[in-house]
Amino acid sequence: MLTATGSEIPWAGPPFPKSEYDCRQRKVLEAVARAELDAIVVTAIGHLRYLTGYHGFGGYFAPFPLILAPGYAPVLVVREYDAEAVRAEGCIDQVVCYRHPGDVAQTCVEVLRQRRLQAQRVGFELGCWNLAPADLRAVQGLCPGMKVADGSQLVASVAAVKSPLELDVMRQAMAITDLAVRVFRNSVCEGVSETETYAAIAGEVSKAGGEIWRSVTLVFGDRTKMPHGVPTPHAIRNNEPAMIEIGGVKHGYAAGLVRSAVLGRHREAESLYALSVEALESAIAAIKPGVSAKTVDAAARRVIEQSGRPGAFRHRTGYQSGIHWTERGNLSLEPAAEEILQAGMTFHLPIILFGENGHLFGCSEHVVVTDSGAEVLSRTDHNLFHAVGST
Amino acid sequence: MLTATGSEIPWAGPPFPKSEYDCRQRKVLEAVARAELDAIVVTAIGHLRYLTGYHGFGGYFAPFPLILAPGYAPVLVVREYDAEAVRAEGCIDQVVCYRHPGDVAQTCVEVLRQRRLQAQRVGFELGCWNLAPADLRAVQGLCPGMKVADGSQLVASVAAVKSPLELDVMRQAMAITDLAVRVFRNSVCEGVSETETYAAIAGEVSKAGGEIWRSVTLVFGDRTKMPHGVPTPHAIRNNEPAMIEIGGVKHGYAAGLVRSAVLGRHREAESLYALSVEALESAIAAIKPGVSAKTVDAAARRVIEQSGRPGAFRHRTGYQSGIHWTERGNLSLEPAAEEILQAGMTFHLPIILFGENGHLFGCSEHVVVTDSGAEVLSRTDHNLFHAVGST
Repeated sequence: MLTATGSEIPWAGPPFPKSEYDCRQRKVLEAVARAELDAIVVTAIGHLRYLTGYHGFGGYFAPFPLILAPGYAPVLVVREYDAEAVRAEGCIDQVVCYRHPGDVAQTCVEVLRQRRLQAQRVGFELGCWNLAPADLRAVQGLCPGMKVADGSQLVASVAAVKSPLELDVMRQAMAITDLAVRVFRNSVCEGVSETETYAAIAGEVSKAGGEIWRSVTLVFGDRTKMPHGVPTPHAIRNNEPAMIEIGGVKHGYAAGLVRSAVLGRHREAESLYALSVEALESAIAAIKPGVSAKTVDAAARRVIEQSGRPGAFRHRTGYQSGIHWTERGNLSLEPAAEEILQAGMTFHLPIILFGENGHLFGCSEHVVVTDSGAEVLSRTDHNLFHAVGST
Repeated sequence: MLTATGSEIPWAGPPFPKSEYDCRQRKVLEAVARAELDAIVVTAIGHLRYLTGYHGFGGYFAPFPLILAPGYAPVLVVREYDAEAVRAEGCIDQVVCYRHPGDVAQTCVEVLRQRRLQAQRVGFELGCWNLAPADLRAVQGLCPGMKVADGSQLVASVAAVKSPLELDVMRQAMAITDLAVRVFRNSVCEGVSETETYAAIAGEVSKAGGEIWRSVTLVFGDRTKMPHGVPTPHAIRNNEPAMIEIGGVKHGYAAGLVRSAVLGRHREAESLYALSVEALESAIAAIKPGVSAKTVDAAARRVIEQSGRPGAFRHRTGYQSGIHWTERGNLSLEPAAEEILQAGMTFHLPIILFGENGHLFGCSEHVVVTDSGAEVLSRTDHNLFHAVGST
């Protein structure tokens, strides 16, 4: 077990002031107390980035657990090779190292013992990514007296409510998204390919100094039957639909948005789109502090059930957004979700419907919950974009 | 539990013929029998892609388990929203769907019961990513009679040995990597920034129709103290080091390579580099069928221990390569690794050493194990590149 030393590396450092991370860590410790836990071991990379500033690129290797316990300084257990990056990019003073993937549990348990947690009740992110069942088994094998609790929702519930600094970053990310969608709309014309459109988007975003989240859905024509389809040389023809799901990103905060277009006319896509907008507007109208997540989901679901096309809707209504596009264990707007909405939460609500011929089509908004309802973050209207086809 | 129907989507389909996937699945079933298991549940996204062709983009949501059991057709349990992409991009006929993240265990257990596995010995990838402890707990809660075994190394051991089609794809990926490294070397001159160099690489690779793996390390000057550092506007000055780790990628197969340069002179970097090459060549010389992974690791480690700078080497000597750059649970060249090398295996061997002043510096090769030793895949020599500084 080694402790890394400090460093001064150019162009490094977390994107927010240390006080912002201190505040986040304090709120997590308050949630630890409310959950009657003695500590939380955070492993989901999105949650680590939220709490430390470190981007987590080294975490492909094995877990990089952050141990937060009342009365102790936060400590990060990381691969020795990445320690200097963790210190330079993050704001955690205590960094403890292991060398090989099989050593993470032993090193983690040494830290837990130093903090007298070996017989306490400790939360682990059991329902998130970046903690494997074998990691948990190894920790439990070395610490048989420790009570392992499920703390999957704990960091998520704190990260759900955005600070003013976070909202500002998300607005900057959305400005990039809006630019990307504008280029998408302008590019739709007969014969243009998905890759050509994506290249045009990438070029304009790069010129604006922006960054795009690595996963992009961009499909034309019959490729709108492909969920999460990536750009290919497939070209759009007259009377075909087109769809994009894309997110500008700033400091790891992605602002996703779904927009659609029709070149000429496409009856099935147009009617699906109209239904999607109706369900989306119903969901947005249901959002305000104090309502449950399932209430928002039900508002969208009801519109589609009453439309006579109940099979068109095959997913949840939306999910918590912020740092990382999606992080498993975060708040989800789905039928059984009891969580209560609070002012400052942000959500992405993609309503993408399945047509009778297999086309997927729809739109989304990205909202922040305000005291009086929901504010839409994008400046792009959610009307279906009609590109004029050849006649 | 729904079963998805077939579809014909343009520009879709797995990159290899179905016979290649059939062969891979057959070899995994042989390994299942050798391990005295009745089935394997594969969840690691890289392993799923290897066995099905589906790229796994939907798997951010929850596990997409592939259940392979002797006497039964392979079945993939996936999110309903992504089912058409799984069918179009993959080569698995039986696709079974769940809708919400919490439903994956129930659906998975229904499939296990249909295959009469509820009281059998089933392998799970307990030490890989993409299976959360809560997923395993839920499956065990619904199937208390099932014996859960650790099958983490099972698919990895099959995927370690490459087919001729895979080696061809890796050579194509390496040609892109070699192009990227050539542009890196040509770009090193006083005042050029990391982002400028990366833009030049991206431009040339794009012109050549190639693709780069999303994670790139590219650091100049004092930023060589940053492990896994991403390109920033930091510019190189005279008498400073520069390092790149980059991989061209083809059909998900990445061919990573580390190369370094010095602009002018930099004594610490130059001596670290010389030691790195000596250790690398020693490891490569130790590679042949029949030796253990730890023997290769020891060959590199011995050189560094004998150099009088034992603290310079702080990681393993290398790891199994192929589909996905790194997949947790794959073969690792480290001190305790007992696995035996076979002809057709491929490895990336990055030897990146820590200098007294904190610089990280070194090089790598990417090799295929042959009957007589190791063949280096890259056409780029591993000499330190000396860019001429201003005088």
